[in-house]
Amino acid sequence: MTQEVAVIGAGSFGTALAQVLADKGCLVDLYARREEQVREINENRTNSRYLPDVMLHAGIRASSDLQAVLRGKRFVLLVMPSSAFRDTLQAIRPHLDPQAYVAHATKGFDIETGQRMSELMEEELYEHDRLKFAVLTGPSHAEELSLRIPTTVVVASRARETAEAFQDLLMTSYFRLYTNPDVVGTELGGSLKNIIALGVGFADGLGFGDNAKAALMTRGLTEITRLGLQLGAAQLTFGGLSGVGDLIATCTSKHSRNWRAGFALGQGKSLDHVLHEMGMVVEGVRATKGAYKIAQQTGVDMPITTAIYQVLFEGKSPKTAVEDLMGRRRIHEMEEVAEAISMDWEQ
Amino acid sequence: MTQEVAVIGAGSFGTALAQVLADKGCLVDLYARREEQVREINENRTNSRYLPDVMLHAGIRASSDLQAVLRGKRFVLLVMPSSAFRDTLQAIRPHLDPQAYVAHATKGFDIETGQRMSELMEEELYEHDRLKFAVLTGPSHAEELSLRIPTTVVVASRARETAEAFQDLLMTSYFRLYTNPDVVGTELGGSLKNIIALGVGFADGLGFGDNAKAALMTRGLTEITRLGLQLGAAQLTFGGLSGVGDLIATCTSKHSRNWRAGFALGQGKSLDHVLHEMGMVVEGVRATKGAYKIAQQTGVDMPITTAIYQVLFEGKSPKTAVEDLMGRRRIHEMEEVAEAISMDWEQ
Repeated sequence: MTQEVAVIGAGSFGTALAQVLADKGCLVDLYARREEQVREINENRTNSRYLPDVMLHAGIRASSDLQAVLRGKRFVLLVMPSSAFRDTLQAIRPHLDPQAYVAHATKGFDIETGQRMSELMEEELYEHDRLKFAVLTGPSHAEELSLRIPTTVVVASRARETAEAFQDLLMTSYFRLYTNPDVVGTELGGSLKNIIALGVGFADGLGFGDNAKAALMTRGLTEITRLGLQLGAAQLTFGGLSGVGDLIATCTSKHSRNWRAGFALGQGKSLDHVLHEMGMVVEGVRATKGAYKIAQQTGVDMPITTAIYQVLFEGKSPKTAVEDLMGRRRIHEMEEVAEAISMDWEQ
Repeated sequence: MTQEVAVIGAGSFGTALAQVLADKGCLVDLYARREEQVREINENRTNSRYLPDVMLHAGIRASSDLQAVLRGKRFVLLVMPSSAFRDTLQAIRPHLDPQAYVAHATKGFDIETGQRMSELMEEELYEHDRLKFAVLTGPSHAEELSLRIPTTVVVASRARETAEAFQDLLMTSYFRLYTNPDVVGTELGGSLKNIIALGVGFADGLGFGDNAKAALMTRGLTEITRLGLQLGAAQLTFGGLSGVGDLIATCTSKHSRNWRAGFALGQGKSLDHVLHEMGMVVEGVRATKGAYKIAQQTGVDMPITTAIYQVLFEGKSPKTAVEDLMGRRRIHEMEEVAEAISMDWEQ
């Protein structure tokens, strides 16, 4: 049976997902806001700003008519920037098929409230069965996925049936999806690693080495895990693809916009200059605001997030921030995370 | 008080540690086997084969006389290749000060028995108080440490006093040491990540992308942790500097010999050719043999180690190995590690 799928958001990852689906024989309606982009996709089969090297599949049809894109669709993928997430949900609400499975692949927080994207879905799509909601996340640079370079990700949902429905929909020989019931943990891993990538970018831009980079990423994973446990996530999730896997992919790849933004800041460029030069959304900058809010709300110690917040919004220098972070770790590594230490000194 | 320290092994990391100690004002006797290397270090203040860019400190004195190097030393650092570890321990035994603290920084296994280096220490230095033994490990490329680029590592011992003695001995503003009572976990992390680095090198050499690399590293960490738990290590150790931290530093740095060896193998070169070309020990090749033995002894599932063993010693192609590994993960990520899952599907 030919599946008809709506993909909301024609940035790099939304377009890459549309390409995978069309590759599998699906008919894909791809929502783009700008008419110019709609025309380029439909007429040239390219999306040059976001995926310059890719010729798009004939099974992808772009449109700026949200109602038409959503009509009768049993599968909806939300791939907007976090800044447009709530507004787009409100626009979607009246047109969503009540039986639709809805997954989002947006990494970030609501900047006003610190809410995760699935919380926004439950709030704004309040009439929809929340067991139909899912999260798609993990180490997945769109540039590689769209070229069929092997990629593995996680689909998380409260309901196994929903996770497996998206797994069946999207799985190919080069795109592998694993299911996980931990919605909170997978969302946090995907969103918070963008903040760590900014910090690693600072360190790289300042000329620190690979030893320091590895230490900072380790500390970042600890911080992400600590917040996750506080919010009810499963510890194992942070050791998996949507935790450490995505952290690695984001902090060590030339494809990562967040790392590149941090690198430029570390080299002394201003935030405004960097954001202007990138021409794409840098989710880590917004995520830092959201996560800083959550850290304050929950009282969880998040030294990296706090330091990056101070650099981005309070004028602290990246050099001071990285030096503070490198010198900050306590002496006994094992005492840092309070739980689960089942070992003590013999003497 | 000026500390006198013996460093046994004048490879890149032994020399870097000697440099740190001399930088702190210690008198360092550095044992090197070859007279030619002893002369180069003492006369030219260089160790061009192992640390080509570094001018060595005047406080370092090289010698090939093990007895003279060890005489009266309260601190001994063992930094030999794993292949020379047991023989060197036997040569050290009669000359070791009974009060000496002895730390090793060797990542690997005994190839015959699969024993860890600290097990060899307890076996061969049987008259020595095992509470004086320690392990120094973590993300620490010698090339960076010797240039005073910030580096953080772990010192593990059964006894807190011993770990803290080495911490006090080695700590500087650019070299930070954290203590950990988990000797087994820190040793396993340091040794097994070299195997994963070979596999990641294969993938990179074959042209797989950053998504696949992150997935393989995640799977590698899972495999390392699984074996560690079976052998009595603490789970947290694998989320720390000597676990994920060292894995990241080894798999993503141009300094890593293990990654470079894997990369060359992935590009189709032969093992003999690669080892000859490197001109230095590639611990991951030996570690694969040792870990394969441990996996068989313990019955722990180690798919990456097994695949790399098959490539190195049984003629399997790197391409087949990586493709098998990428396709091998089970569908439900959370079911992969049996313990500690505290979450279930709502439906």
